[in-house]
Amino acid sequence: MLSYTLGVDYGTNSVRALIVNCQTGEEIATAVYDYPSGNQGVLLDPRDAHVARQNPADYLSGLEHSVCEAVAKAHNCEGFSADKIIGIGIDSTGSSPIPVDAYNTPLALLPQWKDELAAQCWLWKDHTGHKEARLITELAAEHRPAYIAKCGNTYSSEWWWSKIWHCLNTAPEVFEAAYSWVELADFIPSVLAGVSDPKNIVRGICAAGHKALYSDEWGGLPDEAFLTLLDPKLADLRQRLYHKAVDASQTAGHLCAQWASRLGLPEGIVIGVGEFDVHYGAIGCGIEEGTFVKVIGTSTCDCAVVSMDNDIADIPGICGIVPGAILPGYYGIEAGQSAVGDLFKWWVEGVLRDSPDKHSILSEEAARLKPGQSGLLALDWNNGNRTVLVDQRLTGLLLGQTLHTTQAEIYRALIEATAFGARMIIERVEAYGVPVERIVCAGGIAEKNPMLMQIYADVTGRELRVSNSSQTCALGAAVAAAVVAEAHPDFSTAQAAMTSLKELVVRPDPDAQRIYEELFSLYREIHDAFGGVKESANLGQVMKALLKLRDNAHQSTLLEQIA
Amino acid sequence: MLSYTLGVDYGTNSVRALIVNCQTGEEIATAVYDYPSGNQGVLLDPRDAHVARQNPADYLSGLEHSVCEAVAKAHNCEGFSADKIIGIGIDSTGSSPIPVDAYNTPLALLPQWKDELAAQCWLWKDHTGHKEARLITELAAEHRPAYIAKCGNTYSSEWWWSKIWHCLNTAPEVFEAAYSWVELADFIPSVLAGVSDPKNIVRGICAAGHKALYSDEWGGLPDEAFLTLLDPKLADLRQRLYHKAVDASQTAGHLCAQWASRLGLPEGIVIGVGEFDVHYGAIGCGIEEGTFVKVIGTSTCDCAVVSMDNDIADIPGICGIVPGAILPGYYGIEAGQSAVGDLFKWWVEGVLRDSPDKHSILSEEAARLKPGQSGLLALDWNNGNRTVLVDQRLTGLLLGQTLHTTQAEIYRALIEATAFGARMIIERVEAYGVPVERIVCAGGIAEKNPMLMQIYADVTGRELRVSNSSQTCALGAAVAAAVVAEAHPDFSTAQAAMTSLKELVVRPDPDAQRIYEELFSLYREIHDAFGGVKESANLGQVMKALLKLRDNAHQSTLLEQIA
Repeated sequence: MLSYTLGVDYGTNSVRALIVNCQTGEEIATAVYDYPSGNQGVLLDPRDAHVARQNPADYLSGLEHSVCEAVAKAHNCEGFSADKIIGIGIDSTGSSPIPVDAYNTPLALLPQWKDELAAQCWLWKDHTGHKEARLITELAAEHRPAYIAKCGNTYSSEWWWSKIWHCLNTAPEVFEAAYSWVELADFIPSVLAGVSDPKNIVRGICAAGHKALYSDEWGGLPDEAFLTLLDPKLADLRQRLYHKAVDASQTAGHLCAQWASRLGLPEGIVIGVGEFDVHYGAIGCGIEEGTFVKVIGTSTCDCAVVSMDNDIADIPGICGIVPGAILPGYYGIEAGQSAVGDLFKWWVEGVLRDSPDKHSILSEEAARLKPGQSGLLALDWNNGNRTVLVDQRLTGLLLGQTLHTTQAEIYRALIEATAFGARMIIERVEAYGVPVERIVCAGGIAEKNPMLMQIYADVTGRELRVSNSSQTCALGAAVAAAVVAEAHPDFSTAQAAMTSLKELVVRPDPDAQRIYEELFSLYREIHDAFGGVKESANLGQVMKALLKLRDNAHQSTLLEQIA
Repeated sequence: MLSYTLGVDYGTNSVRALIVNCQTGEEIATAVYDYPSGNQGVLLDPRDAHVARQNPADYLSGLEHSVCEAVAKAHNCEGFSADKIIGIGIDSTGSSPIPVDAYNTPLALLPQWKDELAAQCWLWKDHTGHKEARLITELAAEHRPAYIAKCGNTYSSEWWWSKIWHCLNTAPEVFEAAYSWVELADFIPSVLAGVSDPKNIVRGICAAGHKALYSDEWGGLPDEAFLTLLDPKLADLRQRLYHKAVDASQTAGHLCAQWASRLGLPEGIVIGVGEFDVHYGAIGCGIEEGTFVKVIGTSTCDCAVVSMDNDIADIPGICGIVPGAILPGYYGIEAGQSAVGDLFKWWVEGVLRDSPDKHSILSEEAARLKPGQSGLLALDWNNGNRTVLVDQRLTGLLLGQTLHTTQAEIYRALIEATAFGARMIIERVEAYGVPVERIVCAGGIAEKNPMLMQIYADVTGRELRVSNSSQTCALGAAVAAAVVAEAHPDFSTAQAAMTSLKELVVRPDPDAQRIYEELFSLYREIHDAFGGVKESANLGQVMKALLKLRDNAHQSTLLEQIA
């Protein structure tokens, strides 16, 4: 029987709706809505670069516009009708907590709070809670080491408690006015399901486990005694949050009459549990044990899963290992690099002040270089290091420049730096027992930059595949919806039917791989020295080793020209 | 009695003649001649980037053209006539050895050798002898440590013996055809004096002592036994070179009839002993004990003098401490930075691919930044490090980049890097007993970039002065000519009469100085780690320290805006 599910993907600047055929995976219609508020949807504070908030009204208008437009477009597809949509899945950025009143209404939608920044959604990239994050890290290390071990021993300013605590510290009137707080990924399903009491919101294990220190091991959210160490008011809040978070095998409810009518969809269809975008993206990439998913865009998010039949150790520097966070029945493992596309964009548009077209020109020039030929080595830390150092107070580094170093050489060095960073992550998870048999990439850069993909293959020494979908997050949300709507008996079957890879296989070149081995060992020296891993670094030979690799590369170019 | 001397300055791309009033120092006429051969006067080899040679014919045509033009212009000056020119001084780049036949004719002027690169002048920046330099360093360290201690324990590929030995190894037919070799700085005076036997050329202590391992301590040039270790043919050559080198108190001869007629000058006027450009430049800047002269251009050359009444120790990393090399009666001390203007040029024209106008735009933007505000730190080693590491196999480094780092911030970081490099040199010479009471700067950058001068003052914590002349090398040569022509009894009197400083005094700003103290200590950490000075560096706090300085600078900017 022909059926469709709807995936709705809340990104940083826009929301996308995607309608997918549950039997074939065909993506029959999609629509995007750009958030109208603030700067490309982000509310900023000119006095504090750490602020990044979002207007919850944009989420609701975006839901209506994107879904209605997608449904309207889908009617061009033979056999489609809106009553064949059997479920809705939601994914979003995170941790993006929203303060709500006792009726599950975001404070920011109430007239008295609408202009108050602290009453908006605290977008994932809001870093105002950096002091709170540091204190949480310290207090947990002393009093609840198990809490913090699960997230690489460092609690981030991007996460749930740092933000809510910072709100309490700096905008106590908002904190007092909030009955509860809810992650964007849980809020949208609760709206669709017509939930009007925050206690009844179904909370996803993905956000809870990765960002809110939730674990069934210690009975849910951090205990009251610990929260009291932060602030007694946070311990009070705990009662008004949640006691149980669930994985994607559960449902978040059923489409309420009001939203069914606004969206033109059948009332009562099932709503999937919300997950973070990359997690559903990993499902859209066909993740299974042994598959390492890399979503390569402005930053890179990595996902892996390991069956819960086996035990898994904490992995130092990996920010989250959460049972059921991605796929039900599996530990979800998440890692990432804080700047990838952003790093190349900084170089081209920020420093060279050139147009985005320049990326393709530099890519062409950089593709003609051999590994090692530039003599350059870079650290990809312009936006800090998320994995494996978990340290935002790190910065970029470039070395090996001569008076002849070019734009394109630096461009390539930055790409290589992100590849080395990627390899650090893969080696770390493998060392702790996570199998990495194949790498599946998604995201704009993976689709559009074959040079980058080849460098990643050469540096990691592994074959790379690319997802067939260019909207894997929404696709993964639609897959989850298809499972809870019982179009498929389980995720594995649903993924097999609804997701696929491009035929292209990017294979490592053995010669390049050999040179990158040497460059990677130099990268690791610099990484460990500046990352504070090694307290005693011997770096006197690094520049000479780079010059030698450069001279060798030139030599081999000359030999090729003669031959 | 009104008299004039002529200074002739052989630069890398052109030769300049300057006529100076011996009583007032007034520069009454100048003329420049661009070398016509090769690429801006430099003969290159497309197969080997290390090659940099020069056509000796350019030197002779340049001598005639520049002097005749300057003399013609000088006639516009009331009271001038050519017979009032009483002496000629010469300076040049170096070590720039020229192979000559038994009649003091450069081989390259003979028809059979004119197209042979090895028969030309081996320009100072020719690096083809890098293997020979390494071997000389090793052999001297083992067999004649005293030789090498005088030049910072490392013999350079830019110097006399590396080049001549490389000629013997790679163009033995040229080596065999050469009766002798002569430095450009000695060759021009010998031509003017009509010397037709290389044995009679007056050799300056400046080139001999700094580049040819000459010292009266060990009886002149390196002994035959040592040269035999290199190659017995070099030991043979020693006999046909020279036994004694002299300082600038001596004369190189008197103007011969032939050149008097070509130049329109009185026959028999005295010719000063040739010195390297920067050494005479230091004299043109009024160097004396306690004055540290910096000639800041594409690279930077530093000079200091210490009275020979006192003993002076070898200074590690200082390439030359030579009695009489700059001023008679003083040890001449030379140091330098391999890329200064070249580094800024690389950034603007090489990487940003912008026009030279961009320098002033970036300077303006960079001048608005406070010390520490960029969060950046750089090493100025894009062309290796001459002092104090004496290592060409080093490269540039930039760290502290975020996704917001700008062109101008990097531009300023590069300027600061050269200032830190300058301070390393000053601290090193001071630590070994060379007094540095005032700094006098010359060169295009010192004259044109007030931001750079302020940064140098802030970083070094010293007052900076600028030479009044923009052609200090030629001026210094004219001062030397005035002394040997007896217009003045000694250099001190001649300098007092003929050289002067601009009134401007660049004073360190105490606030900036305090921040640069911190930045300099970070610079030194990185310098020592990558320069191989420290085998065990602890760099884990460097990026954090830079971020803290950056945050402080932003904070103080905010406070100023509020106030």
